[in-house]
Amino acid sequence: MWPSTCSKKVRICLAEKHLDWESRAIQADDKVEEHLEPWFVELNPNAVVPVLDHNGNIIVESCVILEYLEDVYPGMRLRPADPVARSQMRYWLDRSESVLHKNINVLSHNRLMARFLGQLSLEEKLARAARPPRIGARTERLRRYEHGVSAEEEELAEAILAECLDDMERLLAGQPWLAGEEYSLADIAMVPFFQRFEVNQLDGLVDWARRPAVGDWYARICERPAYDEGMALAEAQ
Amino acid sequence: MWPSTCSKKVRICLAEKHLDWESRAIQADDKVEEHLEPWFVELNPNAVVPVLDHNGNIIVESCVILEYLEDVYPGMRLRPADPVARSQMRYWLDRSESVLHKNINVLSHNRLMARFLGQLSLEEKLARAARPPRIGARTERLRRYEHGVSAEEEELAEAILAECLDDMERLLAGQPWLAGEEYSLADIAMVPFFQRFEVNQLDGLVDWARRPAVGDWYARICERPAYDEGMALAEAQ
Repeated sequence: MWPSTCSKKVRICLAEKHLDWESRAIQADDKVEEHLEPWFVELNPNAVVPVLDHNGNIIVESCVILEYLEDVYPGMRLRPADPVARSQMRYWLDRSESVLHKNINVLSHNRLMARFLGQLSLEEKLARAARPPRIGARTERLRRYEHGVSAEEEELAEAILAECLDDMERLLAGQPWLAGEEYSLADIAMVPFFQRFEVNQLDGLVDWARRPAVGDWYARICERPAYDEGMALAEAQ
Repeated sequence: MWPSTCSKKVRICLAEKHLDWESRAIQADDKVEEHLEPWFVELNPNAVVPVLDHNGNIIVESCVILEYLEDVYPGMRLRPADPVARSQMRYWLDRSESVLHKNINVLSHNRLMARFLGQLSLEEKLARAARPPRIGARTERLRRYEHGVSAEEEELAEAILAECLDDMERLLAGQPWLAGEEYSLADIAMVPFFQRFEVNQLDGLVDWARRPAVGDWYARICERPAYDEGMALAEAQ
């Protein structure tokens, strides 16, 4: 699952901190869904990537992993010392999941998943829907396999994302980074979703004439070597 | 909005830390929704309580406020020093919002909101639906006012909550608190939702014969003076 957006957050952070790490690619295609297999679910009952194994300590949820890396490797500081800036950082860590991740997922379905699912037989689709260990994920798969994602759902998801980007624009018009004067985990958590806006051709979300401060912020992060390193796709091992 | 569950999290934390604070009750009834008024939306564009004003610094989102209070007033420690325990704390902070808050909201609609909404005229309902500044909240109000919450949605929400409580049970069978050996912000963030399970008569979620470790955990928190202090309803000011 190299394209996983939440794994990119963690890889960018690892790259910023110049930490050595070993990858364990999780296979997910039309046949295999390794993250839903018992050995993986034992590590993470939510059955999603990324998972960090640090000296045998298993840490899950991308934003939790980011703060963990900061707690354990504070060397290259990515969390402001000032409590107010820190709270701003945590606000955006949360937005990256509760707003960006949630809504880009809705928008990716018809664009990417539906084409892929169209190649599967009914039996294969039903088997896929039954596979996630969490009832919420199973229900969501079944609903999407049966009904797809409606134009109204897509419109709402895009409007919610636009609203969040408007908040970013207002903020970044007055400060260089999401948590204030310092580049932080907040920027790292938000930025990988912008590539997904591009890939999904959500032109209204990446029109920098409309949101110049966000465009400038995005460009400044893309210039960082850690961004390329974290976003890069590598061969499955 | 004294009954607000997310405000209770913050009030319990303030009580545990023996901090003095001044309340500013936000009125929300069939006529007034003060949290949707421009002055409040200026403080918190998400238009929800609680909001912390600390020396003029405005901090929003209950879990962000909890970590902020810990950063600023570390005196009575509510965040473990060990990074692994700390990551476990943050995992449950997130669950309190992404799982408990989200799903109890679904289950409260028919039980509490629908009765209240039934007293309103169509015009009043439409006015209410148009009021929140966030498009997601407006859409959700409109959908619920038109269709209510279905039995299937309720069943799913309760099943997701049960799954989360099963995770808690497994964890608390082996350690006293959600983040390990120390009572922490994680326990504070999760516990106020259990009162809502009781108020909503979700008997399957508060049957301690089924989940004795969770029942024991809940009882131990209820014994703490800070719990009563934080949960108490006070007169609007």
